[in-house]
Amino acid sequence: MKYCSTCGHPVEQRIPEGDNRHRYVCISCEEIHYQNPRIVAGTVPVWEGKILLCRRAIEPRYGYWTLPAGFMENAETTVEAAMRETMEEALAEVVVDGLYSIIDVPHINQVHMFYRASLKDGRFGAGEESLESRLFDLADIPWGEISFPTVRKTLELFVEDVKNDSFGVHIDDIRRPMSATSKTG
Amino acid sequence: MKYCSTCGHPVEQRIPEGDNRHRYVCISCEEIHYQNPRIVAGTVPVWEGKILLCRRAIEPRYGYWTLPAGFMENAETTVEAAMRETMEEALAEVVVDGLYSIIDVPHINQVHMFYRASLKDGRFGAGEESLESRLFDLADIPWGEISFPTVRKTLELFVEDVKNDSFGVHIDDIRRPMSATSKTG
Repeated sequence: MKYCSTCGHPVEQRIPEGDNRHRYVCISCEEIHYQNPRIVAGTVPVWEGKILLCRRAIEPRYGYWTLPAGFMENAETTVEAAMRETMEEALAEVVVDGLYSIIDVPHINQVHMFYRASLKDGRFGAGEESLESRLFDLADIPWGEISFPTVRKTLELFVEDVKNDSFGVHIDDIRRPMSATSKTG
Repeated sequence: MKYCSTCGHPVEQRIPEGDNRHRYVCISCEEIHYQNPRIVAGTVPVWEGKILLCRRAIEPRYGYWTLPAGFMENAETTVEAAMRETMEEALAEVVVDGLYSIIDVPHINQVHMFYRASLKDGRFGAGEESLESRLFDLADIPWGEISFPTVRKTLELFVEDVKNDSFGVHIDDIRRPMSATSKTG
């Protein structure tokens, strides 16, 4: 950030009065421009005991397998965001069964939230951001080609929970890039 | 938003190629400025069966009682944000016992997350944004003077869960201003 989005004058970094963090503050109108983490919302879509994964048609991680997920938009709920992303990326309508994982990724200012979901009628496909979608038996998840640490972590938790037939809500965090397996939920 | 925060030129609202929503796009450098919901993180701090509430020393809702909570900052986790806000507003160190509620408030582009927590040593006070803090018996919660619908909803759920001695994770949303009791979790 270099310019004030309200008046167009330059911003500077300083600690505003009553605050204890550096913020971008406009040198002209003095507006404080806060920056906050973003939510990535998605689902773990299940059909007949299999998990639906999408192969990414976009960077980063082109060609890798992912759970359908993306940035939450204004004016929607986290559940709506998760369902919308599943429709956009996997062309799949889902019924949400419950919150499954919340994984903080503080070094990139993101919070990833996955909901457990069931395909409504078994139909799915490849949206514009996917090369293909496919249902995987839990034993056949392509662990070597998973897109992101939060997806890997969520899939690991899910496989474990299926074994134990117990689905809680998992709170976890990933502190460094690519250290997806450093901490259990 | 009127100006590009990267180059200072005006922005216009249009649907970028490959997108389906209006975004602020710079007329000069063509940067797309996405806008996303913000997370408010807080705790339900408990000590000897009582809940710690803070009376707000700031607008909005000056003088009303609230759970300690505030906007999550970059580079922290949701748990860290909840603990930091509890320290800042109630001067209380807490141990987090688990996620308690996630309440979407789509009309103001916010997601509120509360963690169940226990005071570490029973000490608390009033931070700069609080007039006072006080431990309330569940029967004495000042329902007529609660700050925000998400706080009211979380307190209602908590009182119910204490009765049943069962603490799940509650997912809920508040769709219109002040309609805090329109939906149960």
